[in-house]
This record gives sequence, structure tokens and C-alpha cells, in this order.
Amino acid sequence: MSANPFAEGAAYVKGRFVPFAEASIPVTDWGFTRSDAVYDVVHVFQGGFFRLDDHLDRFARAMERRRLAPPEDRAAIEAVLHRCVALSGLQDAYVAMVASRGKPKVAGSRRPADCENHLIAYAIPWIDVIPKDVQERGAHLWLASTPRVPDASVDPTVKNYQWSDLTSGLMEAHDEGYDTAVLCDAAGYVTEGPGFNIFMVKDGRVLTPDRGSLQGITRRSVLELCEQLGIPAEVAPITRAEFEDADEIFAATTAGGVMPVSRLGKRIMGNDRPGPLSLQLKDTYWRRHAEGWHRTPVRPLEDMAAE
Amino acid sequence: MSANPFAEGAAYVKGRFVPFAEASIPVTDWGFTRSDAVYDVVHVFQGGFFRLDDHLDRFARAMERRRLAPPEDRAAIEAVLHRCVALSGLQDAYVAMVASRGKPKVAGSRRPADCENHLIAYAIPWIDVIPKDVQERGAHLWLASTPRVPDASVDPTVKNYQWSDLTSGLMEAHDEGYDTAVLCDAAGYVTEGPGFNIFMVKDGRVLTPDRGSLQGITRRSVLELCEQLGIPAEVAPITRAEFEDADEIFAATTAGGVMPVSRLGKRIMGNDRPGPLSLQLKDTYWRRHAEGWHRTPVRPLEDMAAE
Repeated sequence: MSANPFAEGAAYVKGRFVPFAEASIPVTDWGFTRSDAVYDVVHVFQGGFFRLDDHLDRFARAMERRRLAPPEDRAAIEAVLHRCVALSGLQDAYVAMVASRGKPKVAGSRRPADCENHLIAYAIPWIDVIPKDVQERGAHLWLASTPRVPDASVDPTVKNYQWSDLTSGLMEAHDEGYDTAVLCDAAGYVTEGPGFNIFMVKDGRVLTPDRGSLQGITRRSVLELCEQLGIPAEVAPITRAEFEDADEIFAATTAGGVMPVSRLGKRIMGNDRPGPLSLQLKDTYWRRHAEGWHRTPVRPLEDMAAE
Repeated sequence: MSANPFAEGAAYVKGRFVPFAEASIPVTDWGFTRSDAVYDVVHVFQGGFFRLDDHLDRFARAMERRRLAPPEDRAAIEAVLHRCVALSGLQDAYVAMVASRGKPKVAGSRRPADCENHLIAYAIPWIDVIPKDVQERGAHLWLASTPRVPDASVDPTVKNYQWSDLTSGLMEAHDEGYDTAVLCDAAGYVTEGPGFNIFMVKDGRVLTPDRGSLQGITRRSVLELCEQLGIPAEVAPITRAEFEDADEIFAATTAGGVMPVSRLGKRIMGNDRPGPLSLQLKDTYWRRHAEGWHRTPVRPLEDMAAE
């Protein structure tokens, strides 16, 4: 056992740093009872945050869209994230920031504006959305029958916890023996999966959906890498039929990076292995990490003593 | 100050009864991070539950639909609810039961089936969704522009915490100076509001939407009362235009009962006061409570000593 009480992860709740196992929210916090919360997840690779500013920008925008204003300003949020990672001592970490509506300051109020918003953050050991061995063989993807919630009802670019449609798709996938799922919207356009953006490759071109999806930071990284590598890439509408005709498919997310897919429903792609362009992007993505691309070193604890 | 540590409410979390203020869930419980939970709310009026079996039936169905199976069976859940109320000593209470996905038993798993589901319950002092003084004058209702999430994406008959569209509508309503909101679906049919079903009265007939809504227990009570009172009532599609042409409107929910509306947008109904049929149903609803309609007395603590 480690002597560090934060070795399993460090969290920040209601202004205090606590061991991860103690981090909780009240059962009547609106973040839970109305899923009235926004969040973001940044990862730490070999002691450095990846694209920390981009995640903080997106988190700020999501809070603003949902009128969530915890007491911590941007610099304070950034300092909290650094301290969570530093306390944990983790070199590779999954780092979450959450803004929750909280509870009404006025007892009995049902008005969002009356609530005391608060920030939750935590750093825990790295998680892959798709396990590493599955990434190696290529994920088996199920095209779910549950339609994605429309953008007009719930803005998918505001990162949120309302996963019911994604969870329904995931349960369908598991029932059918697949690893994970992708959802289409009611009009039949491909959107995203539970926790990841999706990409397809056709005739050497890389495509990712323009709707029903989070504007993922890994998605943006992939688009940037395509430009640097001279691979044509586009954000565009993708029909179910076009998707089913892809040469390659891969998923992209902070918690896993670029994750190749080898099967879509009954269709086996390539040699039932990750496709060449998917692998090139995956390898480049991690190589660029090692080179310090978009890297912000985690501040050592001793530098934060005065905070 | 009361000597009873449960006077502010009593809760049940992970098999233990705790004072309400201590009831919380971990920040990585999927009930929070994926809004992967179902719930129900029953009320206690003058020491008796109202329609407890109907709420337990609906809760059981919701759990089954989302494949949630906490360790407590139905009899145990019922006993937990009785004990929460008895511990609190409350005569009038808001009593919630929640089934949450929990966390994976297998570290790192992303499979709902791998999670340890758990039950949360609590009894707290009575809450009105619409404050009593607003109910007296009649609520001012806003027809929100945000479309309700479609039934095909998230089943509204499975009571859930995914309130983002409802919260968007509520914020619109407050911005415009209204008390609360009702949402239409994308096709323009009236659905429900944040925490309540909606009814309209036209030419002596009572109507409530057939889609986009919870099958509320108070809604069912209203339909039963209409039958007993000889008032024609129907569950039917209601267009926005039909709704805007209503003679009367009222909301119905466990946390408030029958709650009359006096304004819909800029339109003032009747004399800017609750309508006569709405008031008749409201009065009958509470009179029948006092007469013991659908009543289950809360079990005294001493009868539960052996549990």
C-alpha cells in the first residue's frame, strides 16, 4: 500500500482537496437530479497535460451556455487541476472537471438561477474507453437502432452527462456481442458513440460527422494531424449507407486517443485488423505526444505551496 | 433544534440509514456521470403514503426497462421507504426512491452490465413544484421554444433525471418573467413541463397529452376523478394551437397535486384566476386524500424493530 492518501486519485469538492474515494455529491444536487451539469476531461501523458487550454476553453463555453458559474475562475480551475494531478503523483491520468448546478440557496426554490453552482475536479489513473487489447485487434462496432437525441433538444457540443440514448445503444451492442456502438440521428446521419467521436476513411479521405456530436479535442487533433500529413479530411454529413461503405473506421476520444475499428456490424473491414490510415494516425498521435505537442507540464507540488 | 438527527429528513444509501444531509453518491457513479438512473417520488399526506403501490409498480417497470437491479427486492424497497418516513417523523413528506447504475465491479469496465447497481431513498419535508402562493393566483406558463427530446431517443415513461431540455425551457420561462414552462415536441405537439404533466380544459372536456410525457400518478388520479365526477376526459394528441385555445389549463404532479394555470404566454385565461374545473379537481384531489383514498399508513418505527 502507498503512504500517499491520494495514490488512488485526488479530488476537489466544495473547495477542498480530498482522496478520490471521498469525492461525492449530495443526492439532491441538481447536477444529479436534473443532470444539470457540464464537464470536460483532459488527459495527462508522461507528466504533461495535453491541450489543457483547449479543454479549459471548451469547459468555459459549456458553463456559459448552461449559465453555470462556480466560484473558481479560470486560473483557479487550472490550478485545481494541476494540484489534483500533483497530489496523486500520477504520470498518466484522466483528469475531469465538472460544473454542477448544486442546490437552491433559497429553500424550496425550483429556479436554476437560485442555485449555488460548484466545481468538482479529480485526477485518477488513465482509462481507455476501449480496452487496449480491443484496440489492438480493432473494435467491433454496432450501429445502434436508438436515435441520437437531436441537437435542438440537447446541444451535443456542450459536454454533458445525459447518456441515456448512448447507453441504450451500448446495451444493444453488448447484446449483439459487439464492443461498442455508434448512433445515427432520426434522419439517418451518423453522429457519435458513448464517449467518442467517429471517423471514416473512404478512398484516402478522412471524414467525421458534422452533427449530433461533441466537437472533440481528439477529433480536432486528428484533423490537424491529417493536415500536417497531407491527408484530405473533412467535417461533413455522413449517412448510414456511406458509413457502412467505409474503407476504415476509427474512434477518437481523450480517454483512448485514436482507436481503430475492424468490424461494423456483420461487415469485416480490411483483413479484420485496424486499417493503415487509422494506424498511421494513431501512431502519429502518440508520437507527437512524446515530442511535447500541445504539452503543459504538471506543476510540481512545491511550486504551489502558496496557493 | 430537534434532538432527532433525522428531523431534516432521513435517507438510505448503500444499505444504511443516514441523516439526509449525509446522503451522497460518488462523483464517478454512473448515475451521475451518465445520468444512468431511474427514480420515482411518492408523497406522504398526514401520515399516509398516497398510491404507494402504483409508485412501486412504476419504479419496478422503470428499473426493468433500464436493466437496473439493486439488491433490495420490492418488499425491501417498501420497507426502506416506510422507515425513512418513520425515522424523520414527518407527517407530510416528499419520498424519493432512486436506482443508480453505480460503478463497475471490474475496474476500467465500460459495460453497464458490469456495474454494481444500488438503491437510494429519502424522505424530506413536502415540496411544491409550484409555490403555494403561485398556485393560488394561478401559474404563468411559458410555451418553450426548446423541443422535448423524442420518445424514441429517451423513453419519457421511464422516470429519469435527464432534464436538460426541460431546464432550457424553464430558463426561457424565467427570462420572460413566467413561473414555469411546457415543452412541445419537434412536430408541435404539447408534452409536459419540468416535473409535471399538463392538462387543458375545452368546452367542458379535460385533455392531457398522449406523448412526450411521463404517465404520472397524479395524472392518473385526475383521470379517475374526472370519471367519478362525470367530467369527460381523454388522453390525446394536443397541438400547440389547440393548447393556446384552452379554456383552462392545470399542471399535475406528486409534488403539488393539481396546480391551476391562469396565463399561457401573453394570453390571460378566465379572469386571470384558476378556472372552475381546475379548482374543482384540485379541491376533490385533496378532499379524497383526507378521506383516505389510496392511502397506506406509514408503519410506526416500533413495528419495524425486527427488520
